[in-house]
Parts: sequence; C-alpha cells; structure tokens
Amino acid sequence: MEELPGALGTSASLALRLGQAIFASASLFFMCLEIEFYSYTAFCYLVTVMGLMVPWSLTLAVVDGYSVFVRHLPPQTRVTSIIVTGDWVLSFLSLGAACSTASVADILLEAGISYCSAKLCSRYRLSAAMAFLSWFLSLISSLFNLWLLPSL
Amino acid sequence: MEELPGALGTSASLALRLGQAIFASASLFFMCLEIEFYSYTAFCYLVTVMGLMVPWSLTLAVVDGYSVFVRHLPPQTRVTSIIVTGDWVLSFLSLGAACSTASVADILLEAGISYCSAKLCSRYRLSAAMAFLSWFLSLISSLFNLWLLPSL
Repeated sequence: MEELPGALGTSASLALRLGQAIFASASLFFMCLEIEFYSYTAFCYLVTVMGLMVPWSLTLAVVDGYSVFVRHLPPQTRVTSIIVTGDWVLSFLSLGAACSTASVADILLEAGISYCSAKLCSRYRLSAAMAFLSWFLSLISSLFNLWLLPSL
Repeated sequence: MEELPGALGTSASLALRLGQAIFASASLFFMCLEIEFYSYTAFCYLVTVMGLMVPWSLTLAVVDGYSVFVRHLPPQTRVTSIIVTGDWVLSFLSLGAACSTASVADILLEAGISYCSAKLCSRYRLSAAMAFLSWFLSLISSLFNLWLLPSL
C-alpha cells in the first residue's frame, strides 16, 4: 500500500497534529490567562473543548513522531476508524465553540465598555481565531484519515 | 448496484430533504417574523444560511420525489460529488450559525430585559434549535451520499 501524506504515521500528520495542539493551546492561553471567563457559557465551553483538543492532538503527535523517527507503524483499520471518529467529533465541537466565542465577543464589544474593555475583547477574538485554525487543521486530519479508511 | 437508503433518489432521502427544508423554514420563521434581527451579526448570518438551506433542500427534494414517484434516476458520480460537497459546506455553515445564535440568545437573556424580553429570547432560542435540527439532517444526508460515492 502506498503512503498517503496526512494519514496517521506520516510527517505531514505530525505537522498537522502539532499545529492543532499549538493553536488549541494558544486559544486556551488567550482565554484563560488572568481573565475571568466563567461568567459566560460560551467561553467555558471553548475552554472545555480546547482542553480536550490539546491532549488528543499531543497523544497522536507522539504516535506520529514514533512512527516517523523510530519505527514505522502500519495503519490498522480499527485504530484509524477510532481516530477518524474522534477527529470528527472534536472538529464539530471546536467549530461550535469557535463560532459561539466569536459571536459572544462581538456582542460584548457592541454592548459597550461595561461588559468588556477593548483589550479584553480583542483577546476573546484572538482566542476564537485560534480555535477556528485548530478546527480547520483537525478537519484536514480527519479527511485524510477518512480517505485512507476504504483502502485498509 | 444495490440501493442505499438515504442516498439521492430514495424515499429516505426525500424524507431527510423535506425535514431539512421544514426545520430551516421554521428557523427562518421564528427569527424573521415581526422581529428586527438586523442589529446582531449572528442573527443576520443565521438568516442568510437558512435562506440558502431552504432552496437547496427543496430542489433536491423535488429531484428525489421525481426519482421515487415518476422515473428512477440512476446515481451519477459527478452529481453525487456536487451534492456531497454542497451538503458538507451547508452543514458546516448551519452548525456555525446555530451555535452563534444560541450563544447570542443566551447572552442577551443574561444581559437583562433591556436587550430582549423573555418572549423574544425564547423565539431566538427556538430558531437556534430548529437550525441545529436542520444541521443534523443535512449532516446525515451528506454522510449517506459520501458512503455511496466510492461504489459509483
């Protein structure tokens, strides 16, 4: 079987996973650091989803790294289907979180200075943008693995 | 080739498309009727996406109805891929719109009576719920057609 770039165990997949983990961590960083985010449901949801995304991406990045640098792991049907499902669910969750955060940040900025200062709102927006990037990379990973699935 | 329930041209697909059109219309109805929704970006976005979803679903429902009741249309690769792509894009757009609307309605209700009365907010929420249902049916249609695609 030929190697599909982006599927589990390739260097492209390693790059995608690292990108997901970095963007998800950046989203968490902008949202959590010295900010009280508990007052809005959408922000709590974003933190939950990104808190799931970081360990998931890092675990798969370790598997990819092992497969690239140490010993090649052949793709297996069951493992690939679990990974496709996980990526799928996480990508939907993170899209929802990113959209909610972006719209709430927009509303808060419109509502005026009493709800969020310009600096705070720009941090919320940055966090939403990072979550969007993380969603996009997760979707790409999922599509590559889904593409590989029928050939196994 | 055996018939796959839910793929284009079957009665299950007709039911899914009608469901999508009905839920999307209900979402539009709750959002637009005698309400000024222009003040919030998220609500305008929902109206745009649902305004795309209704004609798309109705067109495909007509095709399905023709195939079921008049003359069976054999599935074609090019048509199915276009439909899968369209469903895909629309399902992502409608998920984003539903999440945004739900979180904005939540924030407005929290912010107090000056932004939206309880009756108005419950209509926003109903609209978001209908958009979620429409997203779900659109995703199911997309998955069935994607499943059919490799066998064509």
